[in-house]
Amino acid sequence: MLPWSAELAGRLDHHVVDSSLLRGNPLGDPHERPLMVYVPPGYDSEPDRRYPALYVLLGYTGHVAMWMNRTPFRQPYPELADAMFAAGDAPPAIVVYVDAWTALGGSQYLDSPGTGRYHTYLRDEIVPYVDEHYRTIPDRDHRAITGKSSGGYGAMVTAMLAPDVFGALATHAGDALFDVSYRPGFPALARRLRDMYDGSYETFLRDFRGRVAGTKQGDLELLEAYGYAAAYSAEPDGAVRVPFDHTGAVVPKVWQRWIDRDPVTMAAQPQYAEALRSMRAIWVDAGSRDEYFLDLGAVAFRQAILAAGVPEERIFFELFDAGHGGIEYRYPLALAWLARRLT
Amino acid sequence: MLPWSAELAGRLDHHVVDSSLLRGNPLGDPHERPLMVYVPPGYDSEPDRRYPALYVLLGYTGHVAMWMNRTPFRQPYPELADAMFAAGDAPPAIVVYVDAWTALGGSQYLDSPGTGRYHTYLRDEIVPYVDEHYRTIPDRDHRAITGKSSGGYGAMVTAMLAPDVFGALATHAGDALFDVSYRPGFPALARRLRDMYDGSYETFLRDFRGRVAGTKQGDLELLEAYGYAAAYSAEPDGAVRVPFDHTGAVVPKVWQRWIDRDPVTMAAQPQYAEALRSMRAIWVDAGSRDEYFLDLGAVAFRQAILAAGVPEERIFFELFDAGHGGIEYRYPLALAWLARRLT
Amino acid sequence: MLPWSAELAGRLDHHVVDSSLLRGNPLGDPHERPLMVYVPPGYDSEPDRRYPALYVLLGYTGHVAMWMNRTPFRQPYPELADAMFAAGDAPPAIVVYVDAWTALGGSQYLDSPGTGRYHTYLRDEIVPYVDEHYRTIPDRDHRAITGKSSGGYGAMVTAMLAPDVFGALATHAGDALFDVSYRPGFPALARRLRDMYDGSYETFLRDFRGRVAGTKQGDLELLEAYGYAAAYSAEPDGAVRVPFDHTGAVVPKVWQRWIDRDPVTMAAQPQYAEALRSMRAIWVDAGSRDEYFLDLGAVAFRQAILAAGVPEERIFFELFDAGHGGIEYRYPLALAWLARRLT
Amino acid sequence: MLPWSAELAGRLDHHVVDSSLLRGNPLGDPHERPLMVYVPPGYDSEPDRRYPALYVLLGYTGHVAMWMNRTPFRQPYPELADAMFAAGDAPPAIVVYVDAWTALGGSQYLDSPGTGRYHTYLRDEIVPYVDEHYRTIPDRDHRAITGKSSGGYGAMVTAMLAPDVFGALATHAGDALFDVSYRPGFPALARRLRDMYDGSYETFLRDFRGRVAGTKQGDLELLEAYGYAAAYSAEPDGAVRVPFDHTGAVVPKVWQRWIDRDPVTMAAQPQYAEALRSMRAIWVDAGSRDEYFLDLGAVAFRQAILAAGVPEERIFFELFDAGHGGIEYRYPLALAWLARRLT
Repeated sequence: MLPWSAELAGRLDHHVVDSSLLRGNPLGDPHERPLMVYVPPGYDSEPDRRYPALYVLLGYTGHVAMWMNRTPFRQPYPELADAMFAAGDAPPAIVVYVDAWTALGGSQYLDSPGTGRYHTYLRDEIVPYVDEHYRTIPDRDHRAITGKSSGGYGAMVTAMLAPDVFGALATHAGDALFDVSYRPGFPALARRLRDMYDGSYETFLRDFRGRVAGTKQGDLELLEAYGYAAAYSAEPDGAVRVPFDHTGAVVPKVWQRWIDRDPVTMAAQPQYAEALRSMRAIWVDAGSRDEYFLDLGAVAFRQAILAAGVPEERIFFELFDAGHGGIEYRYPLALAWLARRLT
Repeated sequence: MLPWSAELAGRLDHHVVDSSLLRGNPLGDPHERPLMVYVPPGYDSEPDRRYPALYVLLGYTGHVAMWMNRTPFRQPYPELADAMFAAGDAPPAIVVYVDAWTALGGSQYLDSPGTGRYHTYLRDEIVPYVDEHYRTIPDRDHRAITGKSSGGYGAMVTAMLAPDVFGALATHAGDALFDVSYRPGFPALARRLRDMYDGSYETFLRDFRGRVAGTKQGDLELLEAYGYAAAYSAEPDGAVRVPFDHTGAVVPKVWQRWIDRDPVTMAAQPQYAEALRSMRAIWVDAGSRDEYFLDLGAVAFRQAILAAGVPEERIFFELFDAGHGGIEYRYPLALAWLARRLT
Repeated sequence: MLPWSAELAGRLDHHVVDSSLLRGNPLGDPHERPLMVYVPPGYDSEPDRRYPALYVLLGYTGHVAMWMNRTPFRQPYPELADAMFAAGDAPPAIVVYVDAWTALGGSQYLDSPGTGRYHTYLRDEIVPYVDEHYRTIPDRDHRAITGKSSGGYGAMVTAMLAPDVFGALATHAGDALFDVSYRPGFPALARRLRDMYDGSYETFLRDFRGRVAGTKQGDLELLEAYGYAAAYSAEPDGAVRVPFDHTGAVVPKVWQRWIDRDPVTMAAQPQYAEALRSMRAIWVDAGSRDEYFLDLGAVAFRQAILAAGVPEERIFFELFDAGHGGIEYRYPLALAWLARRLT
Repeated sequence: MLPWSAELAGRLDHHVVDSSLLRGNPLGDPHERPLMVYVPPGYDSEPDRRYPALYVLLGYTGHVAMWMNRTPFRQPYPELADAMFAAGDAPPAIVVYVDAWTALGGSQYLDSPGTGRYHTYLRDEIVPYVDEHYRTIPDRDHRAITGKSSGGYGAMVTAMLAPDVFGALATHAGDALFDVSYRPGFPALARRLRDMYDGSYETFLRDFRGRVAGTKQGDLELLEAYGYAAAYSAEPDGAVRVPFDHTGAVVPKVWQRWIDRDPVTMAAQPQYAEALRSMRAIWVDAGSRDEYFLDLGAVAFRQAILAAGVPEERIFFELFDAGHGGIEYRYPLALAWLARRLT
């Protein structure tokens, strides 16, 4: 009974996937990963019907079990999505909640010697697993990938890296235009390292791991930047290169590696532009007061995909009145739009 | 597997209690309420052993299912508590997670015509239910009540109102010294009502209930003050009297009703002073940077119970370096201290 | 030449008044005080004409020489006022810039054993001095008193205390409704004293006076509250009674003395209500985002003077879109309105 | 008498310099400019003695008359400097307060088609004027240039551009490391233009000039960035190129022009490195909590001048506990140090 729980009209299955690709990952994270798969109302009573599949990624520091977190006056996303399908607001679809957590809070859904092969794990292990266990329409034209914040980033880059696997995407306040969204935060991080940790990330990490997480100011900001570096700019041996120095200025060679992973920059490269042109539908939105300026990132990504040749009618774009947090009521809107486009 | 879940050494049972007292409550909230009861490791293998019971209350806007919410780098409180018992850091005890949610976000664990009979429900329904279903030591000397924020408030006042039922308490940043913790916020609320809702709480509530909660600035602050008023200063017919006027100044007659429910004021009344003197153990703590100045409230409550005659050796008091949020790592410390005191 | 300076159409005279009343004042402040008197264009060429006089008071920490401070894209108030008279936007009037500075930053324009006899000095020394040296119309019906913040407070209370001397007033964001404007700030002050100065104002004052002022956070807030206490709640021997204790709660007996000096409270007393009814014109305004909630104070003062029987047509009232600072462009509006009302 | 005024031990002369170079400047600013020159105690009684000259520049939006602004518990810089010389804390020197104000709030002390020839005016008009009217030691080895914020910037670049004129410098929180100090602010400016001014600087400027300056949020930040652009990146015809676009990202060609004027970058160019090596003394400091991260800029500038070959013993470097504002008590420390080094 609400607010404590809700009866779903569809069904949410909890799986554990044993990933070969994540075995022996550099951070020592588990290779057995949770996976939640939702089937819409009617799935069990129409045993021959096949469905499009919508893959959902989490934002940074989020892990898949957190989708079930309850808040005071709202419902968790899986319940909102279920209610939407139950109400008939969208054609039925399978929704897949993917986990790509790491000890640093996330993986950016990329392959990296700093974190592990999370992109390939998603593409080559999770997608086949879902197709095997569920009555999906198992082709790229009936698969979309969505997410918010780092999850929106994941949706953008996964679609560009694997257009053979995904044919549509949605990004809510997705990380983009790194010069505008990430870089302005570096001076404060440099200063915090200077003032609290002798200017050293090693000192910070040792301290952070030795106490209750989050009890010192700046904990999550410092960790997040380090985690992004582990995803974007790790050396082959796993050593993490931080993109700013003790003055807060970017280290050009490292920063370039980040920029090379910026969806706005990627969209200008021929192979990724082609991938984007092949998308059947692209949803881009963000809150106009986003604390990380990801509304500006959304504007830039829209501009980049138009420049890449994506026809305007395949794009949904909106800036809405909100900050970065508490925007999960937007996600079902994108799910419904994608489900219609893929059906 | 962490971080997604943890195997408990003890056992956490989920119940639904059908409350007679909450039937037909003024806000139309459910009378079937969730209740979680934890039994420590060894409970099942020592079938004759009886245990002290520690009751845990939630802060405002919290409901009992939220105890299971997961966060990036920490574990939920029930897991922390379990780990503590499993490690032998405290004598075994039963832990009871009580729900007293309302459509306004909470009840302050009081009986009120504005919300319902949540105090009596806790005392006369929940406690007997637990004693009936679990091998508690069913007397006040072996029951403690604890909580944070409004839950800490609930612990303080429940112990004062029902010293026959509870013999110890712990309050973490509990609502106290209302002149310092609540009152300074009223001018901003008066202004927000003026600027956004024609100065009217009715207009606000209508608007709030007609859209996604929390999408306008001030939503939770406005709701919280209204919810407290429903608990402290409702009329017999349920009409809620707000304690401030359009200038942000307190309405003296209404405000006095709040003050009469302030733990610091209550502690000076003979019957409550006597109740406090009967407590076997009182834990009081708060973060020294608490955004609601509940550290000052903690100081005042400690002073009030000393003035009431509580011997210093029965009191634990500490201000620690933190704000109001993210302090759940403190709760097991209090549980352990109480378990030792009650064993 | 602007922006460095402006040629006045009228004349601004700089005087030094040797005050008998301020000799030997408790804070050791000078008894020789600066006074600036402005005469409008035409004053010298019409030697028989007499003029209304508008007295101007400063906000807390302001002293009379600061009226000449220049800012990047605006002009000092005396230049704005001169431009207004030069443009013929108001009947000509004499403008008197009064100084009531103390080592604590101000006097609230009251007589107090904690600061000195600043009210009587203004009434019995400054006004006669001006009448003697300038062609004023030397009666209360042709004198107004105005100011901003603590200067607005001074205007309100001086008019109430000396209605035989002043017949009109203007208050811009004047200190009023102390429960709403002052009191909410006490918890933060109590905490700051606890965290930085062993909870002691003496320790703070010793530290503050031994270093460059303003180099520690909270300096001005702590000093300001102490200065108000010196004005409102000093003992006959000059000892300053601070209105809050170590928990941030008000000390009732001391706080009552503040409340007795709150313009909103004063207006309800028969003698002050009578004084207010005798005013020919009362201007009340404030910025609707005033950081001290003095917009709410303005609303309350307007309500109080209406309740005291001041006819609505003698009142100008406006909340405008601004905070507490940078509102000196409002002052000439009040000057013009008063000059018309007194002419 | 303090706090209203102070009697100087030395003498402060107010001049007006008629600048040929500023005639017909692009912003229509006056070519008659104020200049204040201070001579130390003893200057008039030792008519044959010659003195080093210390030139003082203002921060952005500051104009020379603002040096005389009084604050509650401190004294204006010219009085602090006088007191220092009077106390014998430094060898006597002449202090020159230079004005380079523009309608945009400043000029960065550069020659620009967007503002005027303020560098050349300082070098070829102000310095000769001072040497002509005062008994300076009229060579570069006995001239220093100092300032705070944009004034510190002016000191750094003027010394690099005119090492034949100045032989020492001091910078307090001077603009440097633009990637860290300026650039992170652009996204917020882009958003403000979008939300309030249709994304257009023209719309902003028209609005700004048509009302009281500073009454809308963001006024000064928007103006400041535009003013810097007028100094760093104006076209030959005076058209101002703003360095960021509607997404807050830098426009590379424009931004490069800014970077070319960054003291940190300039110091790496051979001619400026040589200029820096010729300096007899370089003072660099900043508050460690500087809101514009100019402490990081100070670190980078120190590093840059060491890399340029400036011997460490000619450098004074300090980060002190302060923000960007209210640090004028630091300036006399640099004056004294420079006076000793030049004597």
